[in-house]
Amino acid sequence: MEHLYLPLPEDDLGLFADLYELTMAQAFFNREMFQPATFSLFIRNYPLNRGYLVAAGLQDVLDYLSNLSFSASSLDYLKSLGSFSDDFLKYLSNLKFTGSVRAIPEGRIFFANEPPLEVTAPIIEAQLAETFIVNQINLQTLLATKAARCVWAAPGRTISDFASRRTQGVDAALKMARCSYIGGFQSTSNVLAAKRYGIPPAGTMAHSFVSSFSTEIESFRAYAQAFPDRAILLLDTYDTANGAQRAVTVAKEMESRGHRLLGVRLDSGDFDSLSRQVRRILDGAGLDYVRIVASGGLDEFELETLSKTNAPIDLYGVGTKAGVSADAPWSDMAYKLVCYDDRPVMKFSEDKISMPGPKQVFRFRDGAGKFAEDVIGLQDETVNGGEPLLTQIMAGGRLAVPHPTLAQLRENFEQDFAKLDDKHKALVDPPKYLVSTSQGLERLTTQVRQESSSELP
Amino acid sequence: MEHLYLPLPEDDLGLFADLYELTMAQAFFNREMFQPATFSLFIRNYPLNRGYLVAAGLQDVLDYLSNLSFSASSLDYLKSLGSFSDDFLKYLSNLKFTGSVRAIPEGRIFFANEPPLEVTAPIIEAQLAETFIVNQINLQTLLATKAARCVWAAPGRTISDFASRRTQGVDAALKMARCSYIGGFQSTSNVLAAKRYGIPPAGTMAHSFVSSFSTEIESFRAYAQAFPDRAILLLDTYDTANGAQRAVTVAKEMESRGHRLLGVRLDSGDFDSLSRQVRRILDGAGLDYVRIVASGGLDEFELETLSKTNAPIDLYGVGTKAGVSADAPWSDMAYKLVCYDDRPVMKFSEDKISMPGPKQVFRFRDGAGKFAEDVIGLQDETVNGGEPLLTQIMAGGRLAVPHPTLAQLRENFEQDFAKLDDKHKALVDPPKYLVSTSQGLERLTTQVRQESSSELP
Repeated sequence: MEHLYLPLPEDDLGLFADLYELTMAQAFFNREMFQPATFSLFIRNYPLNRGYLVAAGLQDVLDYLSNLSFSASSLDYLKSLGSFSDDFLKYLSNLKFTGSVRAIPEGRIFFANEPPLEVTAPIIEAQLAETFIVNQINLQTLLATKAARCVWAAPGRTISDFASRRTQGVDAALKMARCSYIGGFQSTSNVLAAKRYGIPPAGTMAHSFVSSFSTEIESFRAYAQAFPDRAILLLDTYDTANGAQRAVTVAKEMESRGHRLLGVRLDSGDFDSLSRQVRRILDGAGLDYVRIVASGGLDEFELETLSKTNAPIDLYGVGTKAGVSADAPWSDMAYKLVCYDDRPVMKFSEDKISMPGPKQVFRFRDGAGKFAEDVIGLQDETVNGGEPLLTQIMAGGRLAVPHPTLAQLRENFEQDFAKLDDKHKALVDPPKYLVSTSQGLERLTTQVRQESSSELP
Repeated sequence: MEHLYLPLPEDDLGLFADLYELTMAQAFFNREMFQPATFSLFIRNYPLNRGYLVAAGLQDVLDYLSNLSFSASSLDYLKSLGSFSDDFLKYLSNLKFTGSVRAIPEGRIFFANEPPLEVTAPIIEAQLAETFIVNQINLQTLLATKAARCVWAAPGRTISDFASRRTQGVDAALKMARCSYIGGFQSTSNVLAAKRYGIPPAGTMAHSFVSSFSTEIESFRAYAQAFPDRAILLLDTYDTANGAQRAVTVAKEMESRGHRLLGVRLDSGDFDSLSRQVRRILDGAGLDYVRIVASGGLDEFELETLSKTNAPIDLYGVGTKAGVSADAPWSDMAYKLVCYDDRPVMKFSEDKISMPGPKQVFRFRDGAGKFAEDVIGLQDETVNGGEPLLTQIMAGGRLAVPHPTLAQLRENFEQDFAKLDDKHKALVDPPKYLVSTSQGLERLTTQVRQESSSELP
């Protein structure tokens, strides 16, 4: 299972679901409702200050759907709850996902109300997958989008993911490495993520390393000897300027042995003034090749400030605030039934209206090739001149196309981001990109609304 | 491995670490630095509006430490990076955690600057564990604390965890179920978490269920027939008041078959006015036993508002905002070296000073048994009259005490929470609980600071 990146043991896949997915399945089963349903995933409102979204998480969803099943242990547990019939549990014991998936490829940019994914399958299968699908695509889209904002805020700089210790759990740490790489980071500190996803690993040293030696310079020497060509020394355990002087001493010792100090790291204080001070110390000693790394509390807003003043920092380690998408840690992403047994359906709840029918997103470009407008239409509609964004990824429960590499997803993002007008990339209050609905979708919405209101008492 | 709740396959445990944990280990190895080190975990500053913290995550840390190892595949990967010596990789292939853990039991309340956990082990072992330990205890403490705030805001109400689809990944979904149960929730919608942790599962129905039938009342009938004693009907797919009337019809049909409708659910709109309207409709039909459930966008602030107006809601389903600790999605939790080879150490970085030496937290109570003051002292210090909060959990790499049950952890929380003055439970800007440092710790801090400054050039 070369490509299985799943965050759950296969035995447990079926039970990673809200209980109501299973109780509804029991009721569908009793009524012999096995007709195909289409569910559409979308974000209704942009998370705070977002003007675009970066699609991510599809790979895990495909792995989940390919492996969805109920183990004997899972079925025993469900039986113990006393809510499910033996017939239904037997049905679950044979359940596999047999449906189809259409999706916008990972790395591509999409907008509010556009579905990055639609699932069509017998209703029980499609409904059961809700919890996992929303969980993964919501998280990964938020993280890839946050990473893109950081990269945008630090042009010409290299960014590494340092978030693992403060992400919300182990799964999120791995996904942060993956999604931030899609969104333009260059490396990750998480070794397991680096191995799983083929991302370059990156790291320096911690304050504990420095303090475990009785003098700072001894700790620098020990590290430089262990990594003669890859050493990055942490300067701020005691005092940054003194630390920089000691780094110079060690760098000169390294030069005398035919090696070069790779870099130094700042982890606290005013990065703008400290980086200038340290750069002067290094340059004054002829060490202009030594790079300056900064980490600690950074997000896209801090990065933008440091970019504006052109602080001499070569590489940023971005952690906590990006790893939890701190200013927008959730979205309202929902997975809504839009069609059952060929009957388009919609939801009318206050502020939570959903549009009926399986959909397609058509993207229009201007003369220069830039994104001009998206039109949300129906799946079987033709909207001339627009690029359809959702493609068939899975059919009959099997992958219709091979998994792209992570490098390809990163490339998807780069290409789309270059075509998006910069105004939508503003970190604060970006204007909304134009998304309209097709005539076909408008007509269907009116029709479903009328049919439904005629049903009211 | 009955108690293994780990979020990672055992094969991967060693590599779930920041790269620098491993590069520092290589440097320690080269210098034959195998002496014991003590690392202390703590939150420096309260997350926004927090006046207390609920300890959680220890169980996963113990499982991690008990199983920490490097698989052949992990070692092959490290070798491929070209940074590690063969001697060191051989050392890693035999590495087990042989150290000790002292900790504040899960469910107990602690405060900023107090260590909920200290690890003492040969420095390589203790350092390697940093990433996993911070990741889990940070997340789980944030989630348990958030849950406690929700429970506090809704006295006399039942709360269920509905967060799984919007938590930051699969690990966080399981941990939210666990930690919210410790913090006083009654159930979880996540079936896998319910099974793993022995938490009651809870669920209702989704809008998709209602829309998959051609009429709302047909969907209610189908669900009521499938779950004659456990049905909760969702009212707001089309119009809440109409939905309530249809629920009455179905409830009367259920009565005629000798069953009772368990509840109805509101998922959008103004919960205060809708719950009163629905209560009137139900009561007017003699259905005073039917409970009202509300869910959708709830957090402790919304709950407090609904509690103040005494909205007739019996059960809350709390999801997204609690599941990501939305107002405080991260803390500054750090894991700092405080002693190496019997030499106490500290960190002097601006705004990031850490206190030296292995520690104990002593809790003092007033005459009524309420928490009055905590004193952070040294591990080997005696502070008369205070209850020492950290206890020995692991020694020589083995558990020193059996894992408590989740019910015991929930009980820990209940008992401590009852002893905490209500002013510290305020949802906004609570006053700080008194935490001071012992004379012994003050003396040691001064001494280490002086010794260190004499080292500066």
